[in-house]
Amino acid sequence: MSNPTLGLVGVGKIARDQHLPSIAETARFDLAALVSPEGVTLPGVPTFRSQAEMLAALPDLDAVAICTPPGVRHGLTVEALRAGKHALIEKPPAATVSELHDLAGEAERAGRTLFTAWHSQFNPAVDATRALLAGGGIRSVAVTWREDVRRWHPGQDWIFAAGGFGVFDPGINALSILTRILPVPVFVQAAELLVPENRDTPIEARLDFRPASDAVSGPVTAHFDFLQLGEQTWSIVVEMADGRRLDLTRGGASLAVDGVVTVAEPDTEYRRIYRHFRDLIDRGVSDVDATPLHLIADAYSVGRRRSVAAFDW
Amino acid sequence: MSNPTLGLVGVGKIARDQHLPSIAETARFDLAALVSPEGVTLPGVPTFRSQAEMLAALPDLDAVAICTPPGVRHGLTVEALRAGKHALIEKPPAATVSELHDLAGEAERAGRTLFTAWHSQFNPAVDATRALLAGGGIRSVAVTWREDVRRWHPGQDWIFAAGGFGVFDPGINALSILTRILPVPVFVQAAELLVPENRDTPIEARLDFRPASDAVSGPVTAHFDFLQLGEQTWSIVVEMADGRRLDLTRGGASLAVDGVVTVAEPDTEYRRIYRHFRDLIDRGVSDVDATPLHLIADAYSVGRRRSVAAFDW
Repeated sequence: MSNPTLGLVGVGKIARDQHLPSIAETARFDLAALVSPEGVTLPGVPTFRSQAEMLAALPDLDAVAICTPPGVRHGLTVEALRAGKHALIEKPPAATVSELHDLAGEAERAGRTLFTAWHSQFNPAVDATRALLAGGGIRSVAVTWREDVRRWHPGQDWIFAAGGFGVFDPGINALSILTRILPVPVFVQAAELLVPENRDTPIEARLDFRPASDAVSGPVTAHFDFLQLGEQTWSIVVEMADGRRLDLTRGGASLAVDGVVTVAEPDTEYRRIYRHFRDLIDRGVSDVDATPLHLIADAYSVGRRRSVAAFDW
Repeated sequence: MSNPTLGLVGVGKIARDQHLPSIAETARFDLAALVSPEGVTLPGVPTFRSQAEMLAALPDLDAVAICTPPGVRHGLTVEALRAGKHALIEKPPAATVSELHDLAGEAERAGRTLFTAWHSQFNPAVDATRALLAGGGIRSVAVTWREDVRRWHPGQDWIFAAGGFGVFDPGINALSILTRILPVPVFVQAAELLVPENRDTPIEARLDFRPASDAVSGPVTAHFDFLQLGEQTWSIVVEMADGRRLDLTRGGASLAVDGVVTVAEPDTEYRRIYRHFRDLIDRGVSDVDATPLHLIADAYSVGRRRSVAAFDW
């Protein structure tokens, strides 16, 4: 069975660093085209200025991977699904909850595969943590995501503009892991959002969650901070009722149980994503996970805002 | 076939003004119990202090209507569904998007009917407007919901506390009508939220929507205002491409086409709600409409906040 052909839409940093190497290494798709308004090219692969041009020129194309900024993902994904293509979407899969649910409906009507690729979920340490937590007996969960926005998003004003997610841009990765590893849903009970007085989105946030059952007996909290100098932290610490402590660190790449590292794999997230996308297509199903985006919308909805010092690069 | 038995949970103003008379008039349910922590009683109907007490005392009860404040609806609805009861929920059906989607899953797992009763949708004028718009050809839609919070919610500080919805409490009724009458989905493109400097939720909001297709060619906007003195306005004005103008006024109760009133019925919302709930149960299906709550969450997510003058009663 020959590989499905794939068009990569949006050839920015994440596409070059992760998608293109993973498409090549996993050999589950044949890269048939790039879409790049800036005219990025690859040897032997045609580049189009817009997705519409690509779809017109390559009517037999099977699938697309949408790696553009979030604001235009909804429109491009609708266009691709209606043209009969399977679609993978980078995280976050849409700018709003309504857009994401609309996409799920479009995929169903089109009879095509839609895959919301929350990359942080695709780590072996995340799977191992999920397995350890499946039986419940969880005393507390503390999510800490502290990074330096000047280092990871230098000069990217869009991240602090309305709709730009702010510190929730990395924070949603943390929530995509949290909802994956816990055996029960959690709900945002309260949130504090610290927004620079000259910006629209939070630079720091604290969330308190209420678990859906007593499989989790104690507090579930998240702290996202965009002003962390020095050591960067992307960790989830779980205390079990039996006294064990799980440290899921490095953004989901490493797991230690009571201080002993049990899983620490090199970064294979995107390779697993492309294998999973191919598997979904072969099985004729979608994988649409809306829960991380729901939790962010909920934090915005029930959160208290506090104005803090202006932020400049 | 005898009527299903119903327990009314939360006996506040809306329950006394609307639910109890409609249950009696429609005669589709037999009122079997009230749940009222304050001890509200009705002749011949037992009152319980908590839903749990009612469920324990009346194991054969068929259904509940949840009319408590929004913050506790999720927990009560889960409890009722897990006890095998059908559930009707007052609007808004949950405090957060995650809670509402969780309820939909609970109803499915329980094999019971869940009905999110957006009462403003249950007007004959809303149905008539929906029919007129079904074919598209819409040039613009302007939602205007302007009321005096001191008159309708006197002293209710919870409405301005985090999670209390603010002017979105009435505004979500407008959106429940908007999403019902339009032939295509709309997405929040931008929003401006005016929040009193001593409160957490908006007292005024302006939303710009992007329609999903050119069935709507021009702007779709909403303006919610909680400081309207004098005449109160709950209207949706639609301009059609063929030049007609539709005025859906009085919160969805009246429709005029080019100034000529075509539908103006007395308030029958809740009678239709109870007939619909019974019909859903008889058919063994649920009616869960999450779109109004999605749009509010989206407005919070992508909206710009502006601090305005303090609000006091």
